[in-house]
Amino acid sequence: MDLLQHLRSEAETVNAHLDHLLPSCEGLARNVIEAMRYSTQAGGKRVRGAMVRAAAETFGTPKDDVLPTACGIEMIHTATLIHDDLPCIDDAGLRRGKPSCHQVFGEATALLAGDALLIAGLHAIATQASRFDPARVARAVVEVAELAGIGGVIAGEAVDIEAEGKPPESETLAFIHDKKTAALFRAAVRAGAILADVTDPDLATLTRYATALGQAFQVTDDILDVIGNPATMGKQTGGDAAKGKLTYTAVWGLDGARTRARELAHEARDAAGQLPANREFWFALVDFVVEREF
Amino acid sequence: MDLLQHLRSEAETVNAHLDHLLPSCEGLARNVIEAMRYSTQAGGKRVRGAMVRAAAETFGTPKDDVLPTACGIEMIHTATLIHDDLPCIDDAGLRRGKPSCHQVFGEATALLAGDALLIAGLHAIATQASRFDPARVARAVVEVAELAGIGGVIAGEAVDIEAEGKPPESETLAFIHDKKTAALFRAAVRAGAILADVTDPDLATLTRYATALGQAFQVTDDILDVIGNPATMGKQTGGDAAKGKLTYTAVWGLDGARTRARELAHEARDAAGQLPANREFWFALVDFVVEREF
Repeated sequence: MDLLQHLRSEAETVNAHLDHLLPSCEGLARNVIEAMRYSTQAGGKRVRGAMVRAAAETFGTPKDDVLPTACGIEMIHTATLIHDDLPCIDDAGLRRGKPSCHQVFGEATALLAGDALLIAGLHAIATQASRFDPARVARAVVEVAELAGIGGVIAGEAVDIEAEGKPPESETLAFIHDKKTAALFRAAVRAGAILADVTDPDLATLTRYATALGQAFQVTDDILDVIGNPATMGKQTGGDAAKGKLTYTAVWGLDGARTRARELAHEARDAAGQLPANREFWFALVDFVVEREF
Repeated sequence: MDLLQHLRSEAETVNAHLDHLLPSCEGLARNVIEAMRYSTQAGGKRVRGAMVRAAAETFGTPKDDVLPTACGIEMIHTATLIHDDLPCIDDAGLRRGKPSCHQVFGEATALLAGDALLIAGLHAIATQASRFDPARVARAVVEVAELAGIGGVIAGEAVDIEAEGKPPESETLAFIHDKKTAALFRAAVRAGAILADVTDPDLATLTRYATALGQAFQVTDDILDVIGNPATMGKQTGGDAAKGKLTYTAVWGLDGARTRARELAHEARDAAGQLPANREFWFALVDFVVEREF
């Protein structure tokens, strides 16, 4: 399977529907709508959206049926990136090779655009009650909110900030890696699979896959911050070390990080092998995550 | 009816359940959890929570059944206050007579606490699918998200910021008043009533009530910023004029604002008179909103 080609095609579908879901840039609040659109459409591989769609398809539901949920997860992801880039957190001027949201629209508008995208993301999932059993939709909203909020991504962000400049601590590192990245991967696959009426054992397998894949993604991010090429990545490298960030390479070294990425990839492949369909996609995604150079 | 006594009793119930819903201050992300708890428990009359509960009761559902939704609306409201107070928006050092969230926990933690509360608010509503018809719960989530997000509160905030220091414009003023305050009042009563399986005509009446009440609330806020007593209000007054904020008093003068508050109160009472139950509460709330001094 040509995964990059597949992801490009998936991203096109997701992007077109995002364009449809986001309000149009007219009327009084157009600044914040422009900011929502700017950051949502600033590129991105839409890995999480593709995961929502593949998860539904793996359990027999046409992937276009869960398009609003795929877009919802991407909106939530974009919201966290906008807020992360703000001066009070990462103070990042570039995101995916373009000026970050607050650089273009100012801090207040970027803050509100992030808020609006968080809400719009959960809204998009809740609207799926017109197509699926509403009990499953409500469950999907509950689970995504848990994994995106203080039980997941937000907790990961908070601990990441607090750990900056402190002595490396492996338990804290594991928490950050799991919550900051793997939690939203879990949210993506669980939401898609729950809408597709997955069984509990299959959901557990898919969750194990997403957890290993998300952690592998984050370890690879830490490696790329040390050895990556800024031109390929569209952002500066070496920033983590300069800021005293708690990273896998800081705790376990570059070789330790590479070993860990291989272990996690093995764990993800093991789970993927037990899924009833779409195995080629799930395997290819593991290779993509650990072998990427951007 | 002694509304203040009723609101105090309602607030006690809502506060106790908020304490139960919020995560405990232990583990790695405890800073942001403390910030969520600090701002959620920093007082507040819980008018919106009481409105959710009264709306459900008006249509025959025990008000304790919608307690999670009442708490959800209060969490979303608190999130908007935390983000509003941040330096990049209002730069407010005090909120309800206490240091604002970022004064106590820093900007990054306050930002994340607001994000977490937005998500937790919608989460709390979605969990109600264990008690109510999930289709109604999904509809409540969709409506609250619309009214709290770029279709409501967030749009009001954004336009409020953009209008600062510009020539007063009555259409913009009406937009700000409706979206910034009335939208979440509408969200509160609609969520409670939808869970109680309200009919469309009754829902329209309740929505008309909340719209008039919310706008009256905001006009009264503008009046109090001119004539209010800072000691009673727990915050500085005169800030709107100093910042060149677009307020009702700036456009129509103090007398014009008082006339408008009376008109809106009349409109709200007219709607309240058509509701099937709880009329005493809905009437008393109108008096409270336009006659308050804090």
